[in-house]
Amino acid sequence: MFNFNAGPATLPAEVKERARQKGFDPSLSVMEMSHRSPEYEAIHFGTKDKIRQVLNLPEDFDILFLQGGASLQFAMLPMNFLTPGKRAGYVITGSWSEKAYEEASRIGDTYIYASGASEQYRTIPRIHSWEPEENTAYLHITSNNTIYGTQWYTLPESCHKVPVCADMSSDLFSRPVDWSKIDIAYAGAQKNAGPAGVTIVIIKKDWLEDAEQDIPKILSYQTHQKKDSLYNTPPTFSIYMTGLMMDWIQAQGGVDQLYKQNAEKASRIYSLMDHSQHFYQPHADKLSRSMMNVTFRLPSVELENLFLKHAAEEEMIGLKGHRSIGGCRVSLYNAVPPKAVDHLQDFMLRFMKKHSC
Amino acid sequence: MFNFNAGPATLPAEVKERARQKGFDPSLSVMEMSHRSPEYEAIHFGTKDKIRQVLNLPEDFDILFLQGGASLQFAMLPMNFLTPGKRAGYVITGSWSEKAYEEASRIGDTYIYASGASEQYRTIPRIHSWEPEENTAYLHITSNNTIYGTQWYTLPESCHKVPVCADMSSDLFSRPVDWSKIDIAYAGAQKNAGPAGVTIVIIKKDWLEDAEQDIPKILSYQTHQKKDSLYNTPPTFSIYMTGLMMDWIQAQGGVDQLYKQNAEKASRIYSLMDHSQHFYQPHADKLSRSMMNVTFRLPSVELENLFLKHAAEEEMIGLKGHRSIGGCRVSLYNAVPPKAVDHLQDFMLRFMKKHSC
Repeated sequence: MFNFNAGPATLPAEVKERARQKGFDPSLSVMEMSHRSPEYEAIHFGTKDKIRQVLNLPEDFDILFLQGGASLQFAMLPMNFLTPGKRAGYVITGSWSEKAYEEASRIGDTYIYASGASEQYRTIPRIHSWEPEENTAYLHITSNNTIYGTQWYTLPESCHKVPVCADMSSDLFSRPVDWSKIDIAYAGAQKNAGPAGVTIVIIKKDWLEDAEQDIPKILSYQTHQKKDSLYNTPPTFSIYMTGLMMDWIQAQGGVDQLYKQNAEKASRIYSLMDHSQHFYQPHADKLSRSMMNVTFRLPSVELENLFLKHAAEEEMIGLKGHRSIGGCRVSLYNAVPPKAVDHLQDFMLRFMKKHSC
Repeated sequence: MFNFNAGPATLPAEVKERARQKGFDPSLSVMEMSHRSPEYEAIHFGTKDKIRQVLNLPEDFDILFLQGGASLQFAMLPMNFLTPGKRAGYVITGSWSEKAYEEASRIGDTYIYASGASEQYRTIPRIHSWEPEENTAYLHITSNNTIYGTQWYTLPESCHKVPVCADMSSDLFSRPVDWSKIDIAYAGAQKNAGPAGVTIVIIKKDWLEDAEQDIPKILSYQTHQKKDSLYNTPPTFSIYMTGLMMDWIQAQGGVDQLYKQNAEKASRIYSLMDHSQHFYQPHADKLSRSMMNVTFRLPSVELENLFLKHAAEEEMIGLKGHRSIGGCRVSLYNAVPPKAVDHLQDFMLRFMKKHSC
């Protein structure tokens, strides 16, 4: 079966097999370990170290394991940093940045720094360097937009004053990150880093010191940093799985190598569409196309449904577009193997020949 | 190996084996399913139905799958219900209720309804029926105290006006619950209901209607209720595991049967201690003893360390008391089999014979 789900998404066969064998040790599975035991601590801190290595993350950043996905980060970020008298600037590039902005607006004062809404989110706004309004607590972007299929290629130059926050839920670990341009990045694991259940938060240590203190303890980044993400019971098995994913990424040659492979996978599908005489119509503008989620329409909704039906008959699943915009979507995260793209490419060509006029 | 961990805790061998075989289907494991797919929805709503059945839960309660453990509930509960002008009354029976109370006090106005602190939390305060102060938004108890090893046997009579909230993290699913006395109950899964990663929240529907609206959306119970706990990506594998646990509970004869077995398991250890001439000194008073966590001291810290060392040599792990109070602790959740208690009992008798004067 070829799984193109947008997340939770496919996992490498080797990772599943290893988890099945090692994670389910009949005498003591990972799930049964106390989170205070040396066995679990080796997994916990080992996963943290592996993430640092995979992402080439400088020592002035800390890594937290939280829960609640990006959706909880939409609230935690402003609770921790959007103090009275300050504003937060959001770049809106799709549904997830809308949600992040709306949640922050319930908590504090916000403004829209730039938005792609008037262009149906086909493009990422061009921003060379940040020029935030006065009293800006932070700026926020969504690095990859799963629903519209757009992605930031290069991040704006850092303004050296105002922290930059990135929701990297769907592309962290899929390409190198320039950490000089980022102060906080967060991602649910369920795209490129394991099953759903753990949220990885990467935060610059000196910014963390400025965080608001007068909020619920469980929602304070400082609480989790001080306790090494062991303030309360962490999602132990999910963290174990993320560790296995990091091993797998390293075995593939690391993020640099996967980045090349991801670019190659996506470009094959985009190229096919560009030569399809508008049979396949990509949603994103050429300069904003996501390598993670390729979204497109067919000439009619009927054809789209037929496309999905026939694809499923050939064991390709997860190709339906997000319910909010319809159409089709191919998610090409790290664990989607090139051979899945071979199959899809072959199918798309056959389907087009059969159904184009 | 006999695992007496306080949580994450042991899982039944049958549940682990089923998860290993079925949950890790090589073509599409549970972790790889989209949370919007019919396959996952069957798991999600199936688990919910099974919980309702296992707990004999009336239809006027809803079941939510959240994340963040009881610690996040300590904040969500007051954020949703402790509105200005109202107060919340907490019964303090140990470290976890202290934490719940402190977190609520950061959010709104609180008072201590009763406390066992002056008696080193050896007893559960005797409360026949609730007599809350004026303007009480809700009353809060911790039904079982993992650290001190005490448990509420019968809940106070409901006052029919003020909602009663129970942190049941460590005894939900271990015994029948009188739902006429409860308005909200919450529990992390990692004691009696699966691995860490999902929090089960059971809430009376008509109380939910009164919840505060002006809070972050992700922290609002109403958000999760309206979206059937699919507002954001749920911890799919953890929910799957909880479903397997519910099947297992039913196969054991349900909560009624496990309750008998849990009472029997605990009473064997307490009885041994009561006849040990103070070699084993249980912390809890007789009328407040927990069936889930049996906590005790030995005549000296040296003997305690030796006890733990020898137990580990005989493959019994997880017997160390919580780091905040020391001593020893035996956790006897649903999945701890009677034969593990046989081994422990035998070991405790031998150890005592050898080391008592």
